[in-house]
Amino acid sequence: MDIISGGVCAAKGFLANGIHCGIRKNRSKRDLALIVSEKRANTAAVYTTNLVKGAPLTVTKEHISDGFARAIICNSGNANTCNADGIEIAEKMSEALGEKLKISPSDIVVASTGVIGQPLDLTPIKNGIPALVEGLAADGSDFAAEGIMTTDTRLKEVAVSFKIGSKECKIGGIAKGSGMIHPNMATMLVFITTDCAISSEMLKKALSSDIQNTFNMVSVDGDTSTNDMVVVMANGMAENEEIIAEGEEFSEFMKALNTVTVNLCRKIAADGEGATKLLECSVSGAKSLEIAKTAAKSVICSSLTKAAMFGADANWGRILCAIGYSGADVDTSKIDVSFKSKKGEIEVCRGGAGIDFSEEKAKEILLEDEIEIIVSLGDGKYASTAWGCDLTYDYVKINGDYRT
Amino acid sequence: MDIISGGVCAAKGFLANGIHCGIRKNRSKRDLALIVSEKRANTAAVYTTNLVKGAPLTVTKEHISDGFARAIICNSGNANTCNADGIEIAEKMSEALGEKLKISPSDIVVASTGVIGQPLDLTPIKNGIPALVEGLAADGSDFAAEGIMTTDTRLKEVAVSFKIGSKECKIGGIAKGSGMIHPNMATMLVFITTDCAISSEMLKKALSSDIQNTFNMVSVDGDTSTNDMVVVMANGMAENEEIIAEGEEFSEFMKALNTVTVNLCRKIAADGEGATKLLECSVSGAKSLEIAKTAAKSVICSSLTKAAMFGADANWGRILCAIGYSGADVDTSKIDVSFKSKKGEIEVCRGGAGIDFSEEKAKEILLEDEIEIIVSLGDGKYASTAWGCDLTYDYVKINGDYRT
Repeated sequence: MDIISGGVCAAKGFLANGIHCGIRKNRSKRDLALIVSEKRANTAAVYTTNLVKGAPLTVTKEHISDGFARAIICNSGNANTCNADGIEIAEKMSEALGEKLKISPSDIVVASTGVIGQPLDLTPIKNGIPALVEGLAADGSDFAAEGIMTTDTRLKEVAVSFKIGSKECKIGGIAKGSGMIHPNMATMLVFITTDCAISSEMLKKALSSDIQNTFNMVSVDGDTSTNDMVVVMANGMAENEEIIAEGEEFSEFMKALNTVTVNLCRKIAADGEGATKLLECSVSGAKSLEIAKTAAKSVICSSLTKAAMFGADANWGRILCAIGYSGADVDTSKIDVSFKSKKGEIEVCRGGAGIDFSEEKAKEILLEDEIEIIVSLGDGKYASTAWGCDLTYDYVKINGDYRT
Repeated sequence: MDIISGGVCAAKGFLANGIHCGIRKNRSKRDLALIVSEKRANTAAVYTTNLVKGAPLTVTKEHISDGFARAIICNSGNANTCNADGIEIAEKMSEALGEKLKISPSDIVVASTGVIGQPLDLTPIKNGIPALVEGLAADGSDFAAEGIMTTDTRLKEVAVSFKIGSKECKIGGIAKGSGMIHPNMATMLVFITTDCAISSEMLKKALSSDIQNTFNMVSVDGDTSTNDMVVVMANGMAENEEIIAEGEEFSEFMKALNTVTVNLCRKIAADGEGATKLLECSVSGAKSLEIAKTAAKSVICSSLTKAAMFGADANWGRILCAIGYSGADVDTSKIDVSFKSKKGEIEVCRGGAGIDFSEEKAKEILLEDEIEIIVSLGDGKYASTAWGCDLTYDYVKINGDYRT
């Protein structure tokens, strides 16, 4: 398997684009994105578990209930959530695009991200659609990735190539993350495309299984968004024999999908609002997978741990504390903790108690921008990883006055 | 019922003191506190639910298993948690104090608060005990309240007087809060004293019931401490007829206790680490008490809501969002939201959707330092209140490098 360029257009038959249509005041920021498949694609999606759901999610769910889609349209700058006319607006977005693309509106995935509770004006979107469609290109992934960004500071895209039988397949994706990111179902906007031929059922299975250990293990701020979804479209244009059951080919597909999703998880966490550091918490030695996941997520979500990492402070007590209140069934007297980065690794806690360590060395390790928090529970064979970021002044700044 | 002065010494027969013994480097900060009752007092306590527990909690639990205590000793600057010799140190603290006070060590409540995982040196405590005991005074509540502070910026104490039959009773308390405050059992250090005569059983009942709607409804940062406890001592010196069952007298006692605990909750929340605002979220119209509590806590815990309040931004979408992901069974289309402060009240969301409101008026209301977030679920008769604070630059600053 190779990491390749092309993002969401790496797979055969996918074009993309992103433009500034005018939802945002800042004219230099693209705010409308489009991904189109030449052929109707098997499509699976997962959605936020928040009871307050963006109108686009309801519309998308309905549209892809037959398992197919041809295009994804997504605006940023407004979530189209908690608006009385939300569903109508989302439907009209689909209709306007369907008309221009000459496809059925019910083959369109529609998504929105941005501020909640402000009416979404259809005018700039309708006016933008012609240019959006006309600019579709095989190298349009960057533009689409920018179009879905909110407070993100960096484009998030990745693609890999892999073999199914003798056929080369590709899978790629774009993501927007930054704030309101918490492990509870989808937790962000992620659009994945592949030319691999895989049945609707197996595609659904692959996605549902993968997100348990990837997107559901990312937290930026503990707030589960109202508008999250992860969508994957598979158009079969690689012409491999369609994957219709578990087996070697399905495993290959899962591996490729996982490479894409883990890569995007890390990018989302590293670019969390205000973040200066990517935090990865690896928990091993748990009595069950659930315990490993609960402990890893609790550490990643702890405001105190996040603030300590911002300050490059090896305050391991907060990590034990976070595991202790997580609800996971652990023997706290068996917990070991180490910190690791490019600068090395240092053990700071053994058997639930502090050990002598060089604060200087720990500082050096924690000053890096990718930190691994390694926790061993010493209690079993299960392991899990969660991703997050530090808590910084900028998180507060960004969210102290987001709407203006 | 009247609010009176005297804090933890307001009730008859209680003396207190606080000194700087040398656990902290800052000589102007008291770091050792003592509360003593002239008579053996019925004593009840609740503890953190964190699996990682401070050694003092284990020792205290054992000491008051008979339902009695004479004194409370508490140091700040070191939590005596995750230390191999923690239990031994906590026992020795009790022994040293017991010797000086000429009481049994098993009649002593011992508590510690501060950094986790650093050995607690007994020497300054032992050396400090003579001065600590000799300075005991009926106006010593302030010193004791200061002695238990960590990153708190303000003393937290309160007392009330009330009548049981013809006897005047008093109840007062001190608290330390600030960081690692989350509604999961006790969630902070609170020491309450009363001269009311109440049986051990009824005292336990009163405390367990009260904290459900008070200390368990406070969150500063979502982190449940390892060292939290709420202790109440009742020495009976008001000479009222002992309360031994539910009834009018018990209700009076509960009311007085609740006045003290709500007051301390508000003080703890308002003085949360880095806080500039006290947030109070009142949820009404819930189908059950559990739903009301879950929704109120979720709003108070939401980092995004907290940051918006810091910025005086009427971003009500985040409040709906927080209720939506709370797990509470609500109909989001029935939710109304208003903001209230000394400057007035403004409705911002009705029936789950935004309404036109004056941003200017909202700003004026939200610039105050005590904000009420009023949520009506329109779905039932249950109500609950939670307390918290805004998320600020200073929270990050304080916690970015706590240990140095």
